Amino acid sequence: MTVSPFGSEIYKDLFSDDDVNAIFSDHEHIRSLIKVEVTLAEVQGALDIIPEQAAKKIKTILENIVLNPKELTHGTARDGIVVPTLVKHLRQAVGGDEASFVHYGVTSQDILDTALVLQLRKVIEIFEARISSLIEILAKLANEHKNTIMAARTRSQISTPTTFGLRAANWLMPFIRHQERLAILKERLLILSFGGASGTLSALSEEDGIATAKALTKKLSLGLPPLPWHNQRDNIAELGAFCSLLTGSSAKIASDIILLCGSGINEVSIKDGGKSSTMPQKANPVAAEAIIALAKTNIELSAALQHAQIHNNERDGAAWQAEWINLPRCLDVTAACIGHQINLLDALQIYADVMKANIDQTYGTILAETASILLSSHMSKSEVQKIVGKACITALETKTDLFDILAQETETNINWQDHRAVKKHIGLSQKFIEHTLAKITN
Amino acid sequence: MTVSPFGSEIYKDLFSDDDVNAIFSDHEHIRSLIKVEVTLAEVQGALDIIPEQAAKKIKTILENIVLNPKELTHGTARDGIVVPTLVKHLRQAVGGDEASFVHYGVTSQDILDTALVLQLRKVIEIFEARISSLIEILAKLANEHKNTIMAARTRSQISTPTTFGLRAANWLMPFIRHQERLAILKERLLILSFGGASGTLSALSEEDGIATAKALTKKLSLGLPPLPWHNQRDNIAELGAFCSLLTGSSAKIASDIILLCGSGINEVSIKDGGKSSTMPQKANPVAAEAIIALAKTNIELSAALQHAQIHNNERDGAAWQAEWINLPRCLDVTAACIGHQINLLDALQIYADVMKANIDQTYGTILAETASILLSSHMSKSEVQKIVGKACITALETKTDLFDILAQETETNINWQDHRAVKKHIGLSQKFIEHTLAKITN
Amino acid sequence: MTVSPFGSEIYKDLFSDDDVNAIFSDHEHIRSLIKVEVTLAEVQGALDIIPEQAAKKIKTILENIVLNPKELTHGTARDGIVVPTLVKHLRQAVGGDEASFVHYGVTSQDILDTALVLQLRKVIEIFEARISSLIEILAKLANEHKNTIMAARTRSQISTPTTFGLRAANWLMPFIRHQERLAILKERLLILSFGGASGTLSALSEEDGIATAKALTKKLSLGLPPLPWHNQRDNIAELGAFCSLLTGSSAKIASDIILLCGSGINEVSIKDGGKSSTMPQKANPVAAEAIIALAKTNIELSAALQHAQIHNNERDGAAWQAEWINLPRCLDVTAACIGHQINLLDALQIYADVMKANIDQTYGTILAETASILLSSHMSKSEVQKIVGKACITALETKTDLFDILAQETETNINWQDHRAVKKHIGLSQKFIEHTLAKITN
Amino acid sequence: MTVSPFGSEIYKDLFSDDDVNAIFSDHEHIRSLIKVEVTLAEVQGALDIIPEQAAKKIKTILENIVLNPKELTHGTARDGIVVPTLVKHLRQAVGGDEASFVHYGVTSQDILDTALVLQLRKVIEIFEARISSLIEILAKLANEHKNTIMAARTRSQISTPTTFGLRAANWLMPFIRHQERLAILKERLLILSFGGASGTLSALSEEDGIATAKALTKKLSLGLPPLPWHNQRDNIAELGAFCSLLTGSSAKIASDIILLCGSGINEVSIKDGGKSSTMPQKANPVAAEAIIALAKTNIELSAALQHAQIHNNERDGAAWQAEWINLPRCLDVTAACIGHQINLLDALQIYADVMKANIDQTYGTILAETASILLSSHMSKSEVQKIVGKACITALETKTDLFDILAQETETNINWQDHRAVKKHIGLSQKFIEHTLAKITN
Repeated sequence: MTVSPFGSEIYKDLFSDDDVNAIFSDHEHIRSLIKVEVTLAEVQGALDIIPEQAAKKIKTILENIVLNPKELTHGTARDGIVVPTLVKHLRQAVGGDEASFVHYGVTSQDILDTALVLQLRKVIEIFEARISSLIEILAKLANEHKNTIMAARTRSQISTPTTFGLRAANWLMPFIRHQERLAILKERLLILSFGGASGTLSALSEEDGIATAKALTKKLSLGLPPLPWHNQRDNIAELGAFCSLLTGSSAKIASDIILLCGSGINEVSIKDGGKSSTMPQKANPVAAEAIIALAKTNIELSAALQHAQIHNNERDGAAWQAEWINLPRCLDVTAACIGHQINLLDALQIYADVMKANIDQTYGTILAETASILLSSHMSKSEVQKIVGKACITALETKTDLFDILAQETETNINWQDHRAVKKHIGLSQKFIEHTLAKITN
Repeated sequence: MTVSPFGSEIYKDLFSDDDVNAIFSDHEHIRSLIKVEVTLAEVQGALDIIPEQAAKKIKTILENIVLNPKELTHGTARDGIVVPTLVKHLRQAVGGDEASFVHYGVTSQDILDTALVLQLRKVIEIFEARISSLIEILAKLANEHKNTIMAARTRSQISTPTTFGLRAANWLMPFIRHQERLAILKERLLILSFGGASGTLSALSEEDGIATAKALTKKLSLGLPPLPWHNQRDNIAELGAFCSLLTGSSAKIASDIILLCGSGINEVSIKDGGKSSTMPQKANPVAAEAIIALAKTNIELSAALQHAQIHNNERDGAAWQAEWINLPRCLDVTAACIGHQINLLDALQIYADVMKANIDQTYGTILAETASILLSSHMSKSEVQKIVGKACITALETKTDLFDILAQETETNINWQDHRAVKKHIGLSQKFIEHTLAKITN
Repeated sequence: MTVSPFGSEIYKDLFSDDDVNAIFSDHEHIRSLIKVEVTLAEVQGALDIIPEQAAKKIKTILENIVLNPKELTHGTARDGIVVPTLVKHLRQAVGGDEASFVHYGVTSQDILDTALVLQLRKVIEIFEARISSLIEILAKLANEHKNTIMAARTRSQISTPTTFGLRAANWLMPFIRHQERLAILKERLLILSFGGASGTLSALSEEDGIATAKALTKKLSLGLPPLPWHNQRDNIAELGAFCSLLTGSSAKIASDIILLCGSGINEVSIKDGGKSSTMPQKANPVAAEAIIALAKTNIELSAALQHAQIHNNERDGAAWQAEWINLPRCLDVTAACIGHQINLLDALQIYADVMKANIDQTYGTILAETASILLSSHMSKSEVQKIVGKACITALETKTDLFDILAQETETNINWQDHRAVKKHIGLSQKFIEHTLAKITN
Repeated sequence: MTVSPFGSEIYKDLFSDDDVNAIFSDHEHIRSLIKVEVTLAEVQGALDIIPEQAAKKIKTILENIVLNPKELTHGTARDGIVVPTLVKHLRQAVGGDEASFVHYGVTSQDILDTALVLQLRKVIEIFEARISSLIEILAKLANEHKNTIMAARTRSQISTPTTFGLRAANWLMPFIRHQERLAILKERLLILSFGGASGTLSALSEEDGIATAKALTKKLSLGLPPLPWHNQRDNIAELGAFCSLLTGSSAKIASDIILLCGSGINEVSIKDGGKSSTMPQKANPVAAEAIIALAKTNIELSAALQHAQIHNNERDGAAWQAEWINLPRCLDVTAACIGHQINLLDALQIYADVMKANIDQTYGTILAETASILLSSHMSKSEVQKIVGKACITALETKTDLFDILAQETETNINWQDHRAVKKHIGLSQKFIEHTLAKITN
């Protein structure tokens, strides 16, 4: 095993996501930090807060600078934050009197949090695209399998008939809500961080401070918070919670699929599932397993982000570092999880015939509820329960259809034959699918 | 110690909330379940799905029934759910042919989840009221202390001046966002649960099913989901996550207060703080401690609810029971936490004079940033850092004001005296407070 | 739903444990605290640290005192700890000059932690008894089902044959280790807490302090730590972790049972499983579900106790209160969990015939590994994999025995008939069971 | 920010540990897996289970093989486990008839878990060494500061005098217990995994299976479990819990240090603490912050490992993968955390003069307990509390020594001067330090 799937070539496709990794690589991290510094100089130059000449030089030089991450290792460990060492390098690169106008009037956290928000925007775009894909795939499954009858299973045992389409609609609906959640969360989250040493912007005049803030939000297409959020970490914690919700919904699907493709059920299978070297008959639900493992991990990563909300005073190094450790992984895990989900659903093979065979194996007891309803106009509820209960046991023991037994054991005018077709007993399954599909907005 | 603060007379006021306890008591739980059953009968009677006569009898008898919770203990443990035993009792009470029309066409989960939603609505009202109170109290603090200068502390050490008002605005802003979050979450959450045995409403005709669902939502003032949500638990998990966010923000305030009232800081105190029997000089920040203990507990309760999202098949007893164990406690903890918060802030005594004295103890080093800015037009950034850094050490060691040292050590035309007043260096503190207060909606 | 299963008559048998509740009731909590105070007075009287007369009066009066927990509610909420109010009541009850000798030279934490340890000892006895019972029951299952052939399932699918006895041995072994863990943990945990206001015992002379500590440990049969452990909470956190390990092992068994009794497998059932009102054919694995729900909850309770290890300075109210909230529940959950486990295993019905039928349904593919081994002396590994893989698919599709297909498709001298009996292919299953049973110590 | 500190050059020295990374690198992972395969061939050759010639060829070729981790990426993602692809490569490398004797009679999990155990042994050695170092450093601190008087702080406020040595002893004692815990845990953990496809060793004869297992344990210096532990994950979960305990103790120290070096306390500082670019007067406690951030993260990683104990059937891919994701990180975090701890304590500067000055600032109220004891032989407990309480307030308000006030306000024969020296009131501080040091075993 390797320390981190995220740094491992062996495990990366199983537990990590290339796209999010690219956004949160050392190089992109540096690029994002520099982008904020450059934009700061640009707007401060345009506003005459720093000499326009300096702003230009800063922009020209820093836009093309390439820093080796290793040059930042030592300083980051010493300072507990990358920015001071980075700024030192940037100022050296700029040189001359203009060097002083790099990182002008701001604090490390302004740069780091704004750079993070820029990275988060890209990750959210990935999430949005994948959630849309999942909604599309699940909607297609729900629609195509409107009439694919399967046994519903409650508390591990077959209950009544349903359709695979309705199961898919149940998988789908949370993702429609996740889409709504993300749209609103995004507005709150994608905001500028700009407060100076202690969140008062004391290093700039009031006028300059406000003007710089406004210009930055415009240039970076970010929202402007009413006050700096250095020690207000609810938005970060909320993002973590959202990720945990999202991957939790994914894990519910994955867990269902593992159960459905298990020996004794076999109602679905995964095309090209993981092979066992010694047992060629097996097709392991690898992606589904990974989704569950990642989703459960994500709950813990999210919990760590909740703890980081308890951020002491104007700035709390320990709480803040806990975000650095856990937030990027949370995003990576989330992307990997829903990425696997897309692949898993694409590879899902649904066996309507096995679903039917499994229903047949219940010898009609899957319609025990129907039988009870039919009988309830002929006798009391408790009598019904007694008779149907007993008949169910007989049906399973003697492998005789429940309705045949009931026809024999009871004297009513019920035409049992009329009610025998399982497809008559899927209730509002199709309506519910339609209603769900109608909720999709595009 | 007792098994649960929630069942303990000794600890209840420290760790629990009377209002939420009242809503989630055995009696209210039963009342809420019966309310759903009665409303079901009522609307089904009005729709001629069950005989109107039966509906009336059910309503009359069940509205006045009093059940001893102990009568439900055994059945609940046996069935893993309270509803079957409850329904048995209700049918016995109704008696006659009408008994069969109690719980008609529904499943236990429909009743339990809808009853839960009714209880949740009441809890959310408590949350809304308390969040409003907190916003009001914090806004008042922010506004009244606009000019109360205090030392900002970053990473445990004094950084630059700020105001207590701005600290309060930082405490406040997340609660304004929590208010927004709750408003939206509420719409998603307060919906009917109505799906029958396996979420297909198979025990009712399509027409009857839809009509009953609509009538129930109208009568109970709940939203109508596009399909039953028996195994879609994202809304419940989201509520847990919200509670964790909310109490996390509360804990940040509490943690700040504990630090501010600590020996060596003493900038605030808690009126009538907890007394120590042997050390009469102490006033322990009891409510702040309880808030932190509860908030950290809530993160774990919320995590347990996230795990419960992985809800197998059409119904998963284990995942569902995990909600029963953790959700009510999560709500209770949340209410207790923000209840304590209100009391804590009401009892908060703020000592502007001590804040000033603590600033004085920095011998001007709290204005090191200002000094650096002033000097930066006279020398290079690195020279500034070197000189100011050295002067800071001298200031603290010799108990001499930093500006006096710098005036002596540097040769510039800076009028150090002009910049000495700390209140000149609180930046946009007041603007930020105003902007924050402007975000409050009423 | 109710705020807490622990305070609910409805849910108590599902989620709570009567025995642990009795130990951690308000009354037992008070009794335990008073026991420590009385013992303190006794030993201090015997050592002439307080007047023997006072000690006698204290003992006589306090041993018979009955306090209403409600008298402690207000003071506990105010002080953040029950002891000061309790001591006030106790001193009032003793009256006169002797009153001052109640709680002599100690701090609240000494009393509270020592009383807790006394309560923990009783809980550990319950754990020990139940772990022993579980070991006995599981050993019996392992032994009785040495020859009960069942299909092993890896990654949700049937792999090779095993025995139910070996499955039971796998369930058993962790409990043998838990027994060892608890025995060692107990020694560390059951120690006196005695340090005075700040853990220096400054209110007593050196001689008196040491003598009192020693006498207390003797009288209370507790260990003597080298120094007071007021802010060393590793033992408490370790107990939480142990509980989480223990219930995790329990949940593994419960999860296996739910899978084994699921529709499509049906290899076990639970005698008198939870009934569904509308689906009489079902027997829900209620206790197994509760075990899983409780075990998952326990992981979070344990995590909360880990966080409480970060206990600031000489005493940290927030961290300590987090223990009060979570430790008793953790113990209760643990006891409930393993209590259910005993009942669940007692009610477990094992169907060797269904196990056999499920193996038959594999059409010999369960012996694919055996086939591969047999063939591997006749061809290369990759040829074997290809041939066996293809034959497995044919076997399942044509419902023909794998060995028949292989006999036809390959030309070897293998006597396929000789290897057909599944019972020949359970490897060292029986040896492993024997070795496991040999590890049980009594 | 980067996806993972563990894959980041920028953050690696802050959040990761080089030594553990080296052990859990892709290359070491592969090396460890191959070592198990080679050892297997060796012992099976020696036992004539496979041709000795084949064993030799396997050993010769595989001991020198170098595999590019990228060659394993695709297969690992497809199979959900690295071993099949690895074995394919190994067999190709060996070639000829002997290739079939690579990975003979075993399953992927045997190789992966045994390789893991070999890696764990090395990590445990690192832990042992660092725990020993910490014990040594803390013992030295405790011993050297036996007479360094400082104010004890309970619930954030100064209580009574103590010594810094006793504080260090409180930090130390849990590590002495961790040493004991690890010694015992190690015995349980470092065992062979060897069970074949489903834990029955069915691919080998009974004799061969037992002989191979014994030979493997001898050759690899591992323990022999009574039965394969494929689905018994308590030892792994226990290791996670141990790590969480260990880093929790570390975080308690770090949290104490952050408080002690905070503005207003200043009793310790960190040599070369993290610098702020704009505030040169600050020395941020970077390592202490990282320790806390890592320790809190570790609690969640450990929780994820607890969840992985619920391992379904004979093998559960999802639960097992959760271990792969979380265990190596847990070990890395643990090593980083205690590594930082050593550095932090090495860089700790203790200011006895500031400790004294802070005590002086209490104007004798730090001896309120002593005053109460002295007065208690002259008046009732409640009178004492009233008088001392009032005098404490006067002392602090008027900046007059408490004892002077009490001397004036009370009429007793107490010689207040005799009791004024704080060093007389550190109780058994020194004895406790000695007792703690005596517990160190070497």
